[in-house]
Amino acid sequence: MEEVNRFVESEAERNQQEYDDFNDPESNDLHHPLLKRNRTLSSSPLAIVGTKVSHIESLDYEINENDLFKQDWRSRSKVQVLQYILMKWLLAFLVGILTGGIATLINLAVENIAGYKLLAVVNYIDEERYMMGFLVMAGANFFLTLVAALLCVLFAPTAAGPGIPEIKAYLNGVDTPDMFGATTLIVKIIGSIGAVSAGLDLGKEGPLVHIGSCIASLLGQGGPDNYRVKWRWLRYFNNDRDRRDLITCGSSSGVCAAFRAPVGGVLFALEEVATWWRSALLWRTFFSAAVVVVVLRAAIEVCKSGYCGLFGHGGLIMFDVSGVEVRYHAFDLIPVALIGVLGGLFGGLYNYALHQVLKVYNVINKKGKMHKLVLALSVSIFTSVCLYGLPFLAQCRPCDPSSLLDSSCPSTGREGNFKQFNCPKGHYNDLATLLLTTNDDAVRNIFSINTPSEFNMLSLAIFFALYCVLGLITFGIAVPSGLFLPIILMGSAYGRMLGIAMAPYTKIDQGLYAVLGAASLMAGSMRMTVSLCVIFLELTNNLLLLPITMLVLLISKTVGDCFNPSIYEIILELKGLPFLDAHPETWMRNITVGELADVKPPVVTLSGVERVGRIVEVLKNTTHNGFPVVDSGITVTQPLGSSPNSANELHGVILRAHLVLALKKKWFRPEPRRTEDWEVRKEFTSIDLAERGITIQEVTVTKAEMDMYVDLHPLTNTTPYTAVESMSVAKALVLFRQVGLRHMLVLPKYQAAGVFPVVGILTRQDLIAHNILDVFPHLTTSKGKKGL
Amino acid sequence: MEEVNRFVESEAERNQQEYDDFNDPESNDLHHPLLKRNRTLSSSPLAIVGTKVSHIESLDYEINENDLFKQDWRSRSKVQVLQYILMKWLLAFLVGILTGGIATLINLAVENIAGYKLLAVVNYIDEERYMMGFLVMAGANFFLTLVAALLCVLFAPTAAGPGIPEIKAYLNGVDTPDMFGATTLIVKIIGSIGAVSAGLDLGKEGPLVHIGSCIASLLGQGGPDNYRVKWRWLRYFNNDRDRRDLITCGSSSGVCAAFRAPVGGVLFALEEVATWWRSALLWRTFFSAAVVVVVLRAAIEVCKSGYCGLFGHGGLIMFDVSGVEVRYHAFDLIPVALIGVLGGLFGGLYNYALHQVLKVYNVINKKGKMHKLVLALSVSIFTSVCLYGLPFLAQCRPCDPSSLLDSSCPSTGREGNFKQFNCPKGHYNDLATLLLTTNDDAVRNIFSINTPSEFNMLSLAIFFALYCVLGLITFGIAVPSGLFLPIILMGSAYGRMLGIAMAPYTKIDQGLYAVLGAASLMAGSMRMTVSLCVIFLELTNNLLLLPITMLVLLISKTVGDCFNPSIYEIILELKGLPFLDAHPETWMRNITVGELADVKPPVVTLSGVERVGRIVEVLKNTTHNGFPVVDSGITVTQPLGSSPNSANELHGVILRAHLVLALKKKWFRPEPRRTEDWEVRKEFTSIDLAERGITIQEVTVTKAEMDMYVDLHPLTNTTPYTAVESMSVAKALVLFRQVGLRHMLVLPKYQAAGVFPVVGILTRQDLIAHNILDVFPHLTTSKGKKGL
Repeated sequence: MEEVNRFVESEAERNQQEYDDFNDPESNDLHHPLLKRNRTLSSSPLAIVGTKVSHIESLDYEINENDLFKQDWRSRSKVQVLQYILMKWLLAFLVGILTGGIATLINLAVENIAGYKLLAVVNYIDEERYMMGFLVMAGANFFLTLVAALLCVLFAPTAAGPGIPEIKAYLNGVDTPDMFGATTLIVKIIGSIGAVSAGLDLGKEGPLVHIGSCIASLLGQGGPDNYRVKWRWLRYFNNDRDRRDLITCGSSSGVCAAFRAPVGGVLFALEEVATWWRSALLWRTFFSAAVVVVVLRAAIEVCKSGYCGLFGHGGLIMFDVSGVEVRYHAFDLIPVALIGVLGGLFGGLYNYALHQVLKVYNVINKKGKMHKLVLALSVSIFTSVCLYGLPFLAQCRPCDPSSLLDSSCPSTGREGNFKQFNCPKGHYNDLATLLLTTNDDAVRNIFSINTPSEFNMLSLAIFFALYCVLGLITFGIAVPSGLFLPIILMGSAYGRMLGIAMAPYTKIDQGLYAVLGAASLMAGSMRMTVSLCVIFLELTNNLLLLPITMLVLLISKTVGDCFNPSIYEIILELKGLPFLDAHPETWMRNITVGELADVKPPVVTLSGVERVGRIVEVLKNTTHNGFPVVDSGITVTQPLGSSPNSANELHGVILRAHLVLALKKKWFRPEPRRTEDWEVRKEFTSIDLAERGITIQEVTVTKAEMDMYVDLHPLTNTTPYTAVESMSVAKALVLFRQVGLRHMLVLPKYQAAGVFPVVGILTRQDLIAHNILDVFPHLTTSKGKKGL
Repeated sequence: MEEVNRFVESEAERNQQEYDDFNDPESNDLHHPLLKRNRTLSSSPLAIVGTKVSHIESLDYEINENDLFKQDWRSRSKVQVLQYILMKWLLAFLVGILTGGIATLINLAVENIAGYKLLAVVNYIDEERYMMGFLVMAGANFFLTLVAALLCVLFAPTAAGPGIPEIKAYLNGVDTPDMFGATTLIVKIIGSIGAVSAGLDLGKEGPLVHIGSCIASLLGQGGPDNYRVKWRWLRYFNNDRDRRDLITCGSSSGVCAAFRAPVGGVLFALEEVATWWRSALLWRTFFSAAVVVVVLRAAIEVCKSGYCGLFGHGGLIMFDVSGVEVRYHAFDLIPVALIGVLGGLFGGLYNYALHQVLKVYNVINKKGKMHKLVLALSVSIFTSVCLYGLPFLAQCRPCDPSSLLDSSCPSTGREGNFKQFNCPKGHYNDLATLLLTTNDDAVRNIFSINTPSEFNMLSLAIFFALYCVLGLITFGIAVPSGLFLPIILMGSAYGRMLGIAMAPYTKIDQGLYAVLGAASLMAGSMRMTVSLCVIFLELTNNLLLLPITMLVLLISKTVGDCFNPSIYEIILELKGLPFLDAHPETWMRNITVGELADVKPPVVTLSGVERVGRIVEVLKNTTHNGFPVVDSGITVTQPLGSSPNSANELHGVILRAHLVLALKKKWFRPEPRRTEDWEVRKEFTSIDLAERGITIQEVTVTKAEMDMYVDLHPLTNTTPYTAVESMSVAKALVLFRQVGLRHMLVLPKYQAAGVFPVVGILTRQDLIAHNILDVFPHLTTSKGKKGL
């Protein structure tokens, strides 16, 4: 069933007329004239998930307070509450352990695969068999890309890309199918190893965030869909709220594992990914991150002893630049500000260009699996050609005499800051240092401090230009790919170039310029501040850099915000995920929820004690997820002395899943009466209520049963959040997002006999700005700016 | 007027009967029998602010969407919107500059005053005139405490203490009077200088947070109350929302200035102080913090040239411990875990003991100004005696031969890690090193690395015991006092002691043990995690310490949480500030808002077009801040074909301030009719509506005017947040807090003729747990645990 509370156009539209006839007379359907239908507020619940177009649903974060829930909750013993708390922490612990472990595994695999590949290539180059070197490299890259892309295309299209936008949407309340499954997890891990080892211009950071979230989701539900552990302790976690919390933990563990930056990871989840946040969650997230760091540290200790093949260099700090004294004066703020401005400009430009490229790629990817594969492989070949070919353009440069002694220059292995490549002894090729290496090493080399004359301006310019192109064409292909590393590479290039240009005037080391450049482009493209600042602090271990890093980030973000939204928001928009923004648009003050409800198809309500036939009809003919339950014709004794009269009572909202459950359990009574507590408790448990995924098609109801009755009262959520019809959409949106709703009931502002107690029901799709504007296009003309 | 929506007991109770008679017949007052009055939900809107008992109010964070607001908002040009954004950033910038400047000033003053004081004392000691040394020290401390205490007692009682709990309450929606005034600011600055220089066991960190918030508040309102700048640009900031944002900026700037920790400051505001948070605010807060750091850095540069007297040592990092390699193995986790457990135990114990001491102090402080003064001065004398006298108990220890050469031991000035005090040449007194110095230097000394045998176990034990006592008795006295430094001192003492005890088995430096001890006690008492972690990272500049710091913080917080809430929550509770917790108690699921509204005095409603006399009566006899506006007897054409009948329409909520405004402007009409748009716009501007603080007593209405009418429609907020009476209090509380409400309308769930469209109105006080329990004591018996 789908997100928006409306009829499915295909089949249901056909049944519309007969349905309308059939409709209960006390529902206020008739007061919506049919001719309004042409301006019906309707929207597509379709979005691109992975590279596939899928139906999406909303998540139920609201606590469904029906009679059964209350009983279950009251009967929970202290022990069970303790179990629940313990499980929460245990799961957070496991998320940390597993994310840390998998991150180590990926690192190990990448370092070894890419390492042996590069070693082979370097050996051929040493023997001056350049063609052979190229063939080995291009062949290996081709094969690795093929593996990654094949897995993604065939088994898990959702594993392509970084996954961060979808996680962001999930934590906002949008459920995207197949996003957190076991297949996705495995494909993501292997695909990420393949894609990163293939030397493509992408990082493992985004994928690690997704991997962390997958782990969290799988743990929370007790394993993959087909092999779930039916552990009693886990039953409390079978709800969207706890799953959301776990996935938040998972995503921050992922960032933490990617950058070995625990605090940065927590802040990343807080600033960029999560929509709802509370301090208890902050604490649990922090715990997961701490576990990840401990795992990483242990792995590093083990690998130092040489058990990990080529992996094992570098400690917890990935790109350490603490070995240089940071001295700057007022004058130095000019180049720093310049980097910030450049970061904002380039970031905005990059977002724009990537948006255009992704649109083209979407068209190509839609054409079929073969197209996706060819696209990925072409990018791989192009990358190989450039990485191998371009260093030949660079001039060989003589090594610094002092470095000849400690044999740090030229370096002949796969690593090293001064690659010999095609150069004679005592010389090095600076472009090869940057290109013929893993991306991590490239960052390490370009960040290297106290090497003021290592890189040539021309080499850096080639490097920058190449990575601008690669960064744009690589992201959209069907392999797991992160955005962080490409942006860091691009940013560090122009940062270092600026450092060289400013060398005569400044005391800041060129390596620090590269760091600032990377930070600026990150802020210019992703528009984060605090989390980036901490991530860079943890990456580089130079606290004294903090004030200028902050300055750069602030300037870049400000400049970037003048042009377009952040790259993640662009991708969300492009994928069509109905993300609810924190800020309502200002024009939303000019329209009320009543007006919105008016242009929707009439609300479908049920009676407290409803005929089975009607329930079946409603479930079959609509795709709504929640139905208001209204008892009509109740006799209320008026306190004001007026004669007792007939009233309508809004009892609450019942979920589709619970209606299906009642049908499946055949909880029918021959006569229309309210049931007793014990009757209900005998039939339903809270575990039943948490069950999802049964559809009405799986339920069979006999003709005789159709005329029986179901008492919906005990299954109805009696405490839904509501809004009076006169409330502005701006305020309703704040309520909707802050409280985490799926349905919002709209109530009439009038009190009178015969007024129906529900005017309408609004869902996420109804509050998305462009859906509203489709029906009320005049709203923007008054004012287009965002609310402040 | 006060917070709770009820009658003031003193005068109003008297008028109750006549008021009830006078009441409009269509209000549903009568349906609350008077005998229910004895279980009325009522609560004291009194709280201790500073050391004074004051009436407190709630803040209006809700956007008051009435006709005038909408017109004003529609007429705002792009230029005005830009002005507004610009002002926001300008104010954030000014907050940063001023907080940084004042922090520098305080540091300068403290270092110089305490420095010269200590120099004089050390000189007397060198001459072995011990008595004279004591007299100088005790005298100076007495005088400095007297100044601080006198200022606090006479001019600004709210300046005493740290101010953080009140800021926390303010950002939660509780307005405490005189908290952010100019007098408070000035007293806080001078008092803080005095108290810290006096060698009392308190820090300038808490006060700096308060100072930052005061600056922010004053800037936002355009200056002190009496000398406000009536700048047109500022008019948009005359609302509680923008003031809240500014104060958040201010508080984080304060932490940033106190610890020179920009990221830690932002996170402190986020984790501990702020209730509402959005990413735009994160960004602005970060900007303020960056400005603070730039100011501090500039000041340090200037002072390095020697223009600042005794100030000028130390850079941006206050307690640098980066000079030691951090190496630890699995075994080292045992003492680290032990520190964590100890931190939690001591933290819980400290919170408990401080709570008891504060209760006693509250009694003393209430007795009058003289009592407050005497208390403060006694603490000062006791502190002086201990600080000066206790070092005589310590044994003189010989200097390390190597340190004799570079004359780092013994040190004879006011600073230095090896104080000579009463010892012969070549010897030092380790307790004097810790006690006869400023608190900052004491921390620096106890954190000192690579000095494994500097401190004697006995000396550290004395130090620890002393600071436990001082930490308890100093906090509640009537001077500005922060909690951070006392806790750091206590914690570092037992940390270092444990380090000495573990020395044979561990590779971790004793200085790092001291750091971990300080962190553990902070987490054990204040129960923060991420922000503390970052603050300690920024204080000590040792990133490699991060994993074990995280571990320690997590363990301490967990252990501490088993005993009692955080120290700030204890203080909030003690002061009676109605802080709304993020988590509803679980028993709140068992009670509905309808039941709460039932036990309140009947809701007082107004008609859309109301008689002046009735408005005056209502304003005089109630203390409510908001009144529902209901139009009754409207004729509604029923779409269902039933005969047109009379309906009641809920138009919205009108604020007291706007009612008073209408009276003050004498916006009366002789006949009861609705007004036109242009009439309203001629009379009221949005600036008028933002005006606060006029009371009904200042307005005079003639007898003739009493029978005229006011059209309340254009002044009514037509989009209040509402809850149906069947909603559980748990959910209502989530709504109330998440959306930031002051009033929540309770609507009936029935629809029928004659039902009044408002059942009641709930405010902050009505949702405070213990207020509800006063009326419904049976609720807790079912379950006392917090919601999970």
